[in-house]
Amino acid sequence: MTLHFAQDASSFAVAPSRLDAYVASRSFDQPTLVMDLDRVSAQYRALKAGLGRADIHYAVKANPARQIIARLVDLGSHFDAASKAEIAQCLAEGASPADVSFGNTIKRASDIAWAWDQGITLFAADAEEELEKIAANAPGASVYIRLIVEVSHADWPLTRKFGCDKDMALRLLDYAKALGLRPVGMSFHVGSQTRQAAMWAPTLDAMAHIWQAALDAGHMLDLLNIGGGFPAFYGEEIDAPTAYAAQVMQMVEARFPNVANIMAEPGRGMVAEAGVIVAEVMLTSRKSDRDMHRWVFLDIGRFSGLAETEGEAIRYQFETARDADPMGPCILAGPSCDSADVLYEKRPVSLPLSLKAGDRVLIRNTGAYTSTYSSVCFNGFPPLDVVVI
Amino acid sequence: MTLHFAQDASSFAVAPSRLDAYVASRSFDQPTLVMDLDRVSAQYRALKAGLGRADIHYAVKANPARQIIARLVDLGSHFDAASKAEIAQCLAEGASPADVSFGNTIKRASDIAWAWDQGITLFAADAEEELEKIAANAPGASVYIRLIVEVSHADWPLTRKFGCDKDMALRLLDYAKALGLRPVGMSFHVGSQTRQAAMWAPTLDAMAHIWQAALDAGHMLDLLNIGGGFPAFYGEEIDAPTAYAAQVMQMVEARFPNVANIMAEPGRGMVAEAGVIVAEVMLTSRKSDRDMHRWVFLDIGRFSGLAETEGEAIRYQFETARDADPMGPCILAGPSCDSADVLYEKRPVSLPLSLKAGDRVLIRNTGAYTSTYSSVCFNGFPPLDVVVI
Repeated sequence: MTLHFAQDASSFAVAPSRLDAYVASRSFDQPTLVMDLDRVSAQYRALKAGLGRADIHYAVKANPARQIIARLVDLGSHFDAASKAEIAQCLAEGASPADVSFGNTIKRASDIAWAWDQGITLFAADAEEELEKIAANAPGASVYIRLIVEVSHADWPLTRKFGCDKDMALRLLDYAKALGLRPVGMSFHVGSQTRQAAMWAPTLDAMAHIWQAALDAGHMLDLLNIGGGFPAFYGEEIDAPTAYAAQVMQMVEARFPNVANIMAEPGRGMVAEAGVIVAEVMLTSRKSDRDMHRWVFLDIGRFSGLAETEGEAIRYQFETARDADPMGPCILAGPSCDSADVLYEKRPVSLPLSLKAGDRVLIRNTGAYTSTYSSVCFNGFPPLDVVVI
Repeated sequence: MTLHFAQDASSFAVAPSRLDAYVASRSFDQPTLVMDLDRVSAQYRALKAGLGRADIHYAVKANPARQIIARLVDLGSHFDAASKAEIAQCLAEGASPADVSFGNTIKRASDIAWAWDQGITLFAADAEEELEKIAANAPGASVYIRLIVEVSHADWPLTRKFGCDKDMALRLLDYAKALGLRPVGMSFHVGSQTRQAAMWAPTLDAMAHIWQAALDAGHMLDLLNIGGGFPAFYGEEIDAPTAYAAQVMQMVEARFPNVANIMAEPGRGMVAEAGVIVAEVMLTSRKSDRDMHRWVFLDIGRFSGLAETEGEAIRYQFETARDADPMGPCILAGPSCDSADVLYEKRPVSLPLSLKAGDRVLIRNTGAYTSTYSSVCFNGFPPLDVVVI
């Protein structure tokens, strides 16, 4: 299985050889995510080249490794934090409080107070009660309202968990003002892993309509947060990062003329391709002579880092040393005694027929939403190990 | 919402008052699972009273807390371990190696060797390659073959991930012998949370047929492992533990006359009702005036301990101090910035309409499959805390 990285020419020189050289020269006694910091730098620069005047707020939840935050601070990135711990991590690595937004719409009141005390001034909200918590614990803070825009073309559309509709948003802008807060703008999310920039158009159209309604209602908005959705390569074609980001910005500028500040929150699109998981085959088997497919069991599964395989949503790319051998489909599963710990069954994965217990398997582009999803010790398995090079 | 515990008269005296008294007298600054050891003891005795001559191998994966293992060692329990770490935990708490089985059908070769070296002699398998690993690393060990029996009436039927069919099983018994192993028996699993003992009948019928075929083929089997499936109370009626276990054993003895050794592996049925999670409301909101239901966001979600709400499979019982107020349906979700972190949406949960951010919520009967499923720090949230009383 040959892997095709989707990347700009500018980042081509650093990957994937540095990761591969490191991995090839070492043995690992448990599943391990290896992250290449230089690949993160290259991706930051590629995205920034396209995003232009927009501020990048790296979505820390994608991968909060200390070294990644530190590198992004050095590069001038801003940060989108989901919790007190993520804010603390950013500040500890040298980020300025002015460059860290508290983007989770669901915040503990005491965490808002703590963040405000640290100098964090920008908070997300999508509900009256959230605004009340912010007003009480961060009086006078800036807030942006998150919208639901249900026209997604993402590989993994978001549920209605976050955001509110237009009428509610306009009321929340008023309510924020009444509570003494500074309602500065709006945010939305096109959906995780939106593979082509062109897919943003319907969402941006809908948002521009809502934005104009807010302006018409007299709100002085100066911040548009375009959220995440920047893709990583998982086997299906994606636009290269600079071209993708530039096209998104072109569409944004055309629909939101003269908006003072724009922020974007890439997470997956920043770090996924900078990581590879080194795993091992535990067992290959058939359940019955009548079975269509083999089963292949890895030492990593849905509860030890590969949570995004739920519903077979994210399809990772696998590499083994036997990929020149004849290939065949298999059902791929994790090592735990949990029947839900199956990675790909509806759409089997093609792996070498010669694969056997003890073989190494590389899982490509796994730098985002893996290490922190890992369970603490389900079935007694240790959490995914992380090495940053 | 009044909670009705399903329990034998023998265990009634100890629960739920001890947990409630502890929880009521303390504050918690993060989601916390509180486990009542006396409730575990009572449940062990209730199950053992029904299981009679069968050995209880507690499924450690349900909750591997050190104090629970120690208490069960004192009570005479045996243990079913899924990994090296779980075996180590049992031995550290005083279990005899002879009382610990390595029940995961997917084992790392080096872990088999380690376990054999520790004195573990009983291993599960459902595939040729697994038998080869056992023969190479634990020469002469006893093995039982896990069967797939697809007639489940469980609330959460297992997938085909574990076990093999009859023809394969008979071949594996032969192969084990050829490899120098001791093929001593068979195992199966009726499916997690099988609420009534009567639901075991079709599976036991199918297994008895396979067992007889193995005897007819000349195999000297002396161990029947009936697995888990023992239920916990999640709102739907379940049989009380002693009566349930006794009825299962009656059905087993009728179908497997004179089998020398029987083992059972309760996990959920042993510890779920001994635990309560203390959580907090983070936010209540509506997304739109047209919405049917409120959203209620807790400080615990699918990635911080409540993984078994996937597909809304396990429906926990919630209690608040406002349960005398008017109730109404809500969509219940976790605190992370992950759109998949929704607990109950298809079948909303009834909670007080007066509920608001900061309110305490008790989540009942959460002692199994919660603490170890918790992610290490997804979105920066700390893992579920555990207190054993």
